[in-house]
Amino acid sequence: MHRPKVWIINIGTELTIGRIVNTNGSWLARELTLRGGDVRRIVVVPDEEEEVTKVIQEAVKSAQIIITTGGLGPTFDDRTLEFIAKALGRRLVENNEALQMVLEKYSRLNLPLTEERRKMALLPEGGRPIPNPVGTAPGLHLVLDGGIHIFALPGVPSEMEAMFTSYVVRALENVLPRLCVVEESMEIHGVPESELAPLIKQVAKKYSDVYLKSHPAGEELSKPIITVKAMASADSCDKARERARAAIADLNNLLQGKDVKRVA
Amino acid sequence: MHRPKVWIINIGTELTIGRIVNTNGSWLARELTLRGGDVRRIVVVPDEEEEVTKVIQEAVKSAQIIITTGGLGPTFDDRTLEFIAKALGRRLVENNEALQMVLEKYSRLNLPLTEERRKMALLPEGGRPIPNPVGTAPGLHLVLDGGIHIFALPGVPSEMEAMFTSYVVRALENVLPRLCVVEESMEIHGVPESELAPLIKQVAKKYSDVYLKSHPAGEELSKPIITVKAMASADSCDKARERARAAIADLNNLLQGKDVKRVA
Repeated sequence: MHRPKVWIINIGTELTIGRIVNTNGSWLARELTLRGGDVRRIVVVPDEEEEVTKVIQEAVKSAQIIITTGGLGPTFDDRTLEFIAKALGRRLVENNEALQMVLEKYSRLNLPLTEERRKMALLPEGGRPIPNPVGTAPGLHLVLDGGIHIFALPGVPSEMEAMFTSYVVRALENVLPRLCVVEESMEIHGVPESELAPLIKQVAKKYSDVYLKSHPAGEELSKPIITVKAMASADSCDKARERARAAIADLNNLLQGKDVKRVA
Repeated sequence: MHRPKVWIINIGTELTIGRIVNTNGSWLARELTLRGGDVRRIVVVPDEEEEVTKVIQEAVKSAQIIITTGGLGPTFDDRTLEFIAKALGRRLVENNEALQMVLEKYSRLNLPLTEERRKMALLPEGGRPIPNPVGTAPGLHLVLDGGIHIFALPGVPSEMEAMFTSYVVRALENVLPRLCVVEESMEIHGVPESELAPLIKQVAKKYSDVYLKSHPAGEELSKPIITVKAMASADSCDKARERARAAIADLNNLLQGKDVKRVA
């Protein structure tokens, strides 16, 4: 199985000063790994020209898939597309399709197209805009010689995730190996998260190819409800489902004897 | 104020496959920024020789302070110190001081010094071990020509944080500007976190030089108790305290009119 090399580049000074944790980096890393990508680096840089252009130039030399997050909005410090253009020696040009996307968003909100908003339609020459189903700023998809794919996505997690799922996955259909990604889940009633965590850890260790995540709901102490999700991928959906189910079944076994209600 | 350039390098395949979020990176970024460091990059790489040696060589060309996390333990894939030695063209030698640290830990636990455990005393030539007050593996402190400081810390957050606070901060006393870091806190009873979050965000926006964090305790819905911490740094402790207190006071103002109990 050929696993294309991936660099994830998260752009934002709020990340390099440690004000927020880079959850976008790990979300993308998990999604790409499950889909057969080989993530070689996750790099966080401040939104400054020198740092961003440098890391883009390095990435182009090392990776076949490059995904950036952050710096696509209308404000003065949203300059990612300008930096990508500079890094690659391309002009920044107004893209008609992108302009239509931006126009449509603002006219629907009954807001005028200011100069700042129009800026969001400027893409490096040769690039295609990625529709943003959640927010306003379009993303960028650029294919370089040699089949290197660059995707620029917003920093807002809900926008980034929606654009990855609706566009990037499809655009990489012939680049990433054909894997089926499957998610199985189980709802556990009556076990506090602090008690469940070590059991999940135990299962995760055994099923190193399955991603396990727990999402608490209800009230931690009086009425805990926890959804455990198991994600796995394989070259067939049956195989992937078998792995995810095996991990869930294992967790279920560890819960035997405890007074809990399980909803498969 | 001279702010030395910092690179943070987080080593671990569990990070590049997205199995865990890189909280070590943002913790270090916040601590170093508050202390006057200029964090230029946070890089995550898998624990593989080629990737780690490459990023170390890049870091040495760009930063004055380099901090790595991960890969210091006794298992076969804990090879960070070996990779650092290779990257710098230094021999890996048994360090007597490090050996004493490791010996002491295991004799206290009544465990033998196996070959794997002895491996933790191998440091790049010229390096000093950093005592690990929480776990067993010592860290590394290496000063290169030109005053470049390399610190290798463990990946376990509690060990990493303890070693940073007890050793790294002191070792950088004459490298980082002399800033005083101050933390103020307030306990808020009776406001659910979901209601408090937008208020904290509002204050954080206004006091962009203050780090605000909330830690929930009690029960989210019936009896919420939230501790809000404000961290700030300045060239005098008075100034830093004034900034942290101002942010807390601002949050307090926003809470006026709400039926809450505040403990300063």
